[in-house]
Amino acid sequence: MSSAKHRVVIVGGGFGGLSAAQALAKADVEVTLIDRRNHHLFQPLLYQVATASLSTAEIAWPIRHILRKRDNVTTLLANVTGVDTAAQQVLLDDGSAVGYDSLILATGARHAYFGHDDWEQFAPGLKTLEDATTIRRKLLLAFEAAERESDPDKRRALLTFAIIGAGPTGVEMAGAMIELARSSLQGEFKTIQPNEARVVLIEGGDRVLLNFDQSLSAYTLKALRQLGVEVELGQMVSAIDGEGVTYGDKRLATHTVVWAAGVAASPAARWLGVEPDRAGRVRVAPDLSVPGHPEIFVVGDTASISMDDGKPVPGVGDAAKQGGRHAARVINQRLAGKTEPLPFRYRHAGDLATIGKQAAVIDFGWIKLTGWMAWWVWGFAHIYFLVDLKNRIFVTLSWLWIYLSGQRRARLITQGDANGPAPIKEVSEGD
Amino acid sequence: MSSAKHRVVIVGGGFGGLSAAQALAKADVEVTLIDRRNHHLFQPLLYQVATASLSTAEIAWPIRHILRKRDNVTTLLANVTGVDTAAQQVLLDDGSAVGYDSLILATGARHAYFGHDDWEQFAPGLKTLEDATTIRRKLLLAFEAAERESDPDKRRALLTFAIIGAGPTGVEMAGAMIELARSSLQGEFKTIQPNEARVVLIEGGDRVLLNFDQSLSAYTLKALRQLGVEVELGQMVSAIDGEGVTYGDKRLATHTVVWAAGVAASPAARWLGVEPDRAGRVRVAPDLSVPGHPEIFVVGDTASISMDDGKPVPGVGDAAKQGGRHAARVINQRLAGKTEPLPFRYRHAGDLATIGKQAAVIDFGWIKLTGWMAWWVWGFAHIYFLVDLKNRIFVTLSWLWIYLSGQRRARLITQGDANGPAPIKEVSEGD
Repeated sequence: MSSAKHRVVIVGGGFGGLSAAQALAKADVEVTLIDRRNHHLFQPLLYQVATASLSTAEIAWPIRHILRKRDNVTTLLANVTGVDTAAQQVLLDDGSAVGYDSLILATGARHAYFGHDDWEQFAPGLKTLEDATTIRRKLLLAFEAAERESDPDKRRALLTFAIIGAGPTGVEMAGAMIELARSSLQGEFKTIQPNEARVVLIEGGDRVLLNFDQSLSAYTLKALRQLGVEVELGQMVSAIDGEGVTYGDKRLATHTVVWAAGVAASPAARWLGVEPDRAGRVRVAPDLSVPGHPEIFVVGDTASISMDDGKPVPGVGDAAKQGGRHAARVINQRLAGKTEPLPFRYRHAGDLATIGKQAAVIDFGWIKLTGWMAWWVWGFAHIYFLVDLKNRIFVTLSWLWIYLSGQRRARLITQGDANGPAPIKEVSEGD
Repeated sequence: MSSAKHRVVIVGGGFGGLSAAQALAKADVEVTLIDRRNHHLFQPLLYQVATASLSTAEIAWPIRHILRKRDNVTTLLANVTGVDTAAQQVLLDDGSAVGYDSLILATGARHAYFGHDDWEQFAPGLKTLEDATTIRRKLLLAFEAAERESDPDKRRALLTFAIIGAGPTGVEMAGAMIELARSSLQGEFKTIQPNEARVVLIEGGDRVLLNFDQSLSAYTLKALRQLGVEVELGQMVSAIDGEGVTYGDKRLATHTVVWAAGVAASPAARWLGVEPDRAGRVRVAPDLSVPGHPEIFVVGDTASISMDDGKPVPGVGDAAKQGGRHAARVINQRLAGKTEPLPFRYRHAGDLATIGKQAAVIDFGWIKLTGWMAWWVWGFAHIYFLVDLKNRIFVTLSWLWIYLSGQRRARLITQGDANGPAPIKEVSEGD
């Protein structure tokens, strides 16, 4: 038995990886957390950056800052290219390798376009800060261009915004976008009326928020329509291009499409050389380890986990947190010499979605809330889950400001202007 | 005489253009303000975005939001490509034209590299939000890369930061950068000591803050060195490349260089077909109009104006504001039928520069301040000059937080990661 400390490598600094690192902080292990970005992103609020309510810095924090007090945790900014399961090493893009005794893969999900990867260039998703600022820029530029456009058809196309997928992300985007268009920008344009803006939410299923309780779906549909969002249910998208979206037998002329309809797992399965499920996720054992590789755990969106009733654990932040903590628990247990099985039990806290500034739906199981009260509970819950005190203060103030004044604080078009996208200036080119 | 209203076109939404628009708000004119960006940028605080103290949204505001209550002002996001002085039209890049009866060009300045344009890719300047976030990203990535670098020479080069030019911008950047390295990042790295970081400020003249009073230059030099900044005076840079900077007979290995040494005017002179001065600026008459074109005014950094003592009006925000207001005054006077000459009299409010978090120099002419007291006055002055209440509140809180906790709020690496610059996703490619 080696006398060196047990080395745990965690790939991914999102909800899953960060929770695992924090849960291992006092353990007698050396932890290395690797992420290709320097910050932890609070994804549930990304749509607020995309609709200019919050700034990027209000929902993202440097990972090494969050973990600075954990003396046994080293943070590395690096790009992982693979895993050598035989040699027990994580491979980095500069050719180096990081050895592990235990490995936790928490690499999350990215967008999937149901085989239509060509749609991605026209319909960005909302997973990273750049996704959010790109959408923000397209939204604000569309209004600016419409102000200068005399042709009514072109103007209508510029002021039409489509969102594909009516899960929580799509619903929240739709509510925020219609408010941006009709409230925040009110009175600032001379030739266009922000009320000319149309937000069209297109969903393939028969209701919005498919995974929520039926009564909450019904409430949400009504609330969205009251805000002015056009909701198209039971409509599968068949084409997306630079001029618009085709769904069912309809064609919608639009230049701004947001994809909120499908995600697929990270390449973790490929790294491990295991057979993934249909969404690319790694099928894990009850304790979240990889069959055949008990020292490797997969948690979060990139893992395929079934609950007792056979339903899959949802791809939400809280599930990733619970998974990360469970993997840490198993590692700790083994270090203590215990061998009894420790299966992961996911506890679903609830479903939450907000619809504009004054309504939300929350389902805690034993209680459901809708409307104004739900919105305040939603607000407090999100602020509570933010990483640290200063961000809680700043986000609270930002929201108070928007709520009281109707003005959004972060309406900047960056990385581009009337000239189009800005040329990038970097020592090695690109930005 | 035309019965249509007098049309004033303003190109540029910075200090000069915005002041002119606000000064014409109650006049009996139609104003069109054109900018290729959607936001007004408070440039004096850009270095704080570059060193992760403030977020972009805290120092920039949508122009049309600032001007929303001015009913006679139309805001246009567009790229101006030229001016047809005969037809009295401003030409836009989409082929359209905007007619004017009076024109105010307030198009600012950009960086100049003394004929070495090839230096620009290695030594970005600090004029736009993207400049600031690019510098921020390079700074933070340099630390991340150094954490993984075992070769001591390469590490030293990664942790060496050079700033060219010791005017207020260079001095403020140097102070903020050394504090970022030695305070904010303290304790967050395992293999590097942030004290290993070197900040080298290179100035061709014989003192820092060449345009300030000598006593303030001396104070600043001492304060910078106390913070740990290495100041090289009387050193002209002869080469900048991807590996470092050559100045005098020295070679400094560095991968992060910030250019704060030279600016040149916008293309306004070329648009007007007039002979510019050596820095490309338009030589204007005493009332700020263009000789031969009394209906055209040029204000701000892109104008060459002499004060009574023959010295040039400095390229500072306040001079642009005063110029913008003066151009508006002349236009109003002419509309009222008055013909007496109205020469521009620049009133220099003072010189201000901050050195780190606890010292500054201020020269109001009749009083000079240094040190801690000067820093608080500097802070209040900048907050006062911010555009509106909400930003004053948020910036005040950000600074209070940094001052009390030492932590910087905006340490995000965006638009790129361990993979290098992020691929841009846009309908028309690029970002």
